[in-house]
Amino acid sequence: MSQPYRIALAGLGTVGVGVAKILKAHAEAIARKAGRPIEVVAVSARDKSRNRGFDFSDVTWVEDASTLVNEDVDCIVEMIGGEGGVAKTLAESSLAKGLDFVTANKALLAHHGYELAKVAEGNNAGLMYEAAVAGGIPVIKAIREGYAANDIGAVYGILNGTCNYILTEMRKSGRDFKSVLADAQKLGYAEADPAFDIEGTDAAHKLCLLTALAFGVKPDFKKLAVKGITNVTSVDIEFARQLGYRIKLLGMARKEGNAIVQSVEPCMVPRKSTMGAVDGVFNAVYIEGDFVDTGLLVGRGAGEGPTASAVVADIIDLARGTKLPVFGVPYSDLKEANWGRRGKVESQFYLHLRVMDKPGVLADVSATLRDCDVSIEAMLQQGRDPNNPVSIVMTTHEVQQKQVEEALEGFANLERVLEKPSMMRIEDF
Amino acid sequence: MSQPYRIALAGLGTVGVGVAKILKAHAEAIARKAGRPIEVVAVSARDKSRNRGFDFSDVTWVEDASTLVNEDVDCIVEMIGGEGGVAKTLAESSLAKGLDFVTANKALLAHHGYELAKVAEGNNAGLMYEAAVAGGIPVIKAIREGYAANDIGAVYGILNGTCNYILTEMRKSGRDFKSVLADAQKLGYAEADPAFDIEGTDAAHKLCLLTALAFGVKPDFKKLAVKGITNVTSVDIEFARQLGYRIKLLGMARKEGNAIVQSVEPCMVPRKSTMGAVDGVFNAVYIEGDFVDTGLLVGRGAGEGPTASAVVADIIDLARGTKLPVFGVPYSDLKEANWGRRGKVESQFYLHLRVMDKPGVLADVSATLRDCDVSIEAMLQQGRDPNNPVSIVMTTHEVQQKQVEEALEGFANLERVLEKPSMMRIEDF
Repeated sequence: MSQPYRIALAGLGTVGVGVAKILKAHAEAIARKAGRPIEVVAVSARDKSRNRGFDFSDVTWVEDASTLVNEDVDCIVEMIGGEGGVAKTLAESSLAKGLDFVTANKALLAHHGYELAKVAEGNNAGLMYEAAVAGGIPVIKAIREGYAANDIGAVYGILNGTCNYILTEMRKSGRDFKSVLADAQKLGYAEADPAFDIEGTDAAHKLCLLTALAFGVKPDFKKLAVKGITNVTSVDIEFARQLGYRIKLLGMARKEGNAIVQSVEPCMVPRKSTMGAVDGVFNAVYIEGDFVDTGLLVGRGAGEGPTASAVVADIIDLARGTKLPVFGVPYSDLKEANWGRRGKVESQFYLHLRVMDKPGVLADVSATLRDCDVSIEAMLQQGRDPNNPVSIVMTTHEVQQKQVEEALEGFANLERVLEKPSMMRIEDF
Repeated sequence: MSQPYRIALAGLGTVGVGVAKILKAHAEAIARKAGRPIEVVAVSARDKSRNRGFDFSDVTWVEDASTLVNEDVDCIVEMIGGEGGVAKTLAESSLAKGLDFVTANKALLAHHGYELAKVAEGNNAGLMYEAAVAGGIPVIKAIREGYAANDIGAVYGILNGTCNYILTEMRKSGRDFKSVLADAQKLGYAEADPAFDIEGTDAAHKLCLLTALAFGVKPDFKKLAVKGITNVTSVDIEFARQLGYRIKLLGMARKEGNAIVQSVEPCMVPRKSTMGAVDGVFNAVYIEGDFVDTGLLVGRGAGEGPTASAVVADIIDLARGTKLPVFGVPYSDLKEANWGRRGKVESQFYLHLRVMDKPGVLADVSATLRDCDVSIEAMLQQGRDPNNPVSIVMTTHEVQQKQVEEALEGFANLERVLEKPSMMRIEDF
């Protein structure tokens, strides 16, 4: 059997320890698949004395992760996280030296993916990031290789397990966002500071990488419109149910003519669709290709095992010598995308208005919709109460988002429409 | 750019033509991904004069496909089909000569996969078959590479689009098997001779390959218990609905201790599960791994575009030099599986009895179940009619299949139980 493939682990949080566990538990099977043994020879983490449930005493410990590049290794596995800092320094120095680099760091690649691809490919180093998107789902490999024969038209995904867990629990329990979030934090499904997840940033980082890979364009995080789930109410969830939908936070990228339109936002998807059936902490990615038609991949989006499984898959690929362009095509072929305006995309929408239940309010609302050329498919009112605000929800026929936005502005001028009305895209699968 | 990767197409049915179309339509993008252009230099098909909607006039035509091996090519793409014959001869001679071989032929590999892997790996030739299982779903790649870090515990799949289409239509229309089959034939979703699909053979070939790949064992088609969908009645479908299930033809392989248990049979799966939501001609494959937990991949299982997309993905992999062991580990490491008995696997079951609706019949049935230690979760009776047979269906609690089979034998001795009762496994996802 060939020489061992020597790796260094930068960061020994749950994922780092998970990687070490897998490489030990399945050492023999992995060596057979990779054609050579894989050895952890060095690690770096803040606190050497911490009990991690794994014995790292026989490997070299390095205090400053950025110096791992000086060890005698073939590959650095980065699980430190963060858009810049040590993770970025380490990526640059490793790749510049021709070392392979495996990372679970979506922020790093969403912001610096193009520059890092350039360094990697220029130095014949592998740069792999399966764990960065949708955890245990091998979606990077699927798009880069499995669907490689296709011109991809769209890629959609439930890309954040925390949000999907919260939305699922809101639906099942009928409770509101804040109360379910608090529970999710207790259960470890949401961070103490949940902003990164619930405001959509994490999903946006992941979508950014999927977009680059699917369409062969330079990743550009700044061109992404992002809306999280903090404004989704239990009333929306209940109305979605009555209308035959479920609310999911979707990352969406789609070709519209020569442009690419991408966004992260809560959407309604049909309850009976496979996407609609993806609940709890599960992630899913949906793909449209011109020959393969559609594909859907479902799995756990986070957690020690699934994420470490993805990291180790990348390590095995690299150990056996598979080295592919970072975003599917050579970095020099990645195009500057023509980012389209979301306003031009036609779809159905859900609208939620809080109104005073007085005669004439519906006539006012209907007139505004008519003036903006928005036609209505269904309308529901929750209860009747002449003295208190009630909710009216509607679903539109296919219409451009900008028309709906105009209607919302029109509603703001109506005396009996209270609060700012909310809207949500309806996506059919 | 490097030398072109030269391929020959053996067989120009819909898939063969589809491959040529993709390679032409996306020539530039594919060359970027593969690192070199891919050229079709020779083809073989029965009738040169037939209009295939694609111009093959500038390539070498060969009458006898088995002579393609003599052309100056890097790779033979076999889309002739059949367990033996030309397909087998061509595979053996190509691989022996060190040529790469891409095939959509599940029968060939289910029967001769081990021998062909030996020839391929012994001559450093690539042997790829993504299109052989679940069409456009990149499941071979997912198991071989994406989930490579895992010890796989189970792989389940909806592997035959014809069967899934028929079962879906039976549910949606309430019509019986024969009438839906006739329609499927008219629509081109079922062959004129549908036996291969509806009796489960096609799904069994595919499962055989998934089992070998997932568990690192020699494929062994003979060790597969196969039951098709020909005995699924519209009554079963309706009861499934009432009980919250859908009927799917599943290929299932699972580790039970040191043994592997595999079968193809119609099963009930929860209506609300993602697997239950996979309808029509779509296929799905479900995987359990010890670290990744579960994964589900969904897509089109057949058709020109999806199948050709899978074939071209394999060609791109080979063109860029990726050459992996055929079944994930070197052929010499593939084990002789210890095939387990299905009777020992515990699960819930659905039973369907036709009985005369007379006092005492339920007592007799219940006593038989008690004697076989089968406990019942739910029971439904269809209508009441003292003069005619009625249907009684039951779902059991978790129980070994052999106990249920004993109960069925017991029912055969009951005067008021008419016909042979049917049973179906209930699979939870």
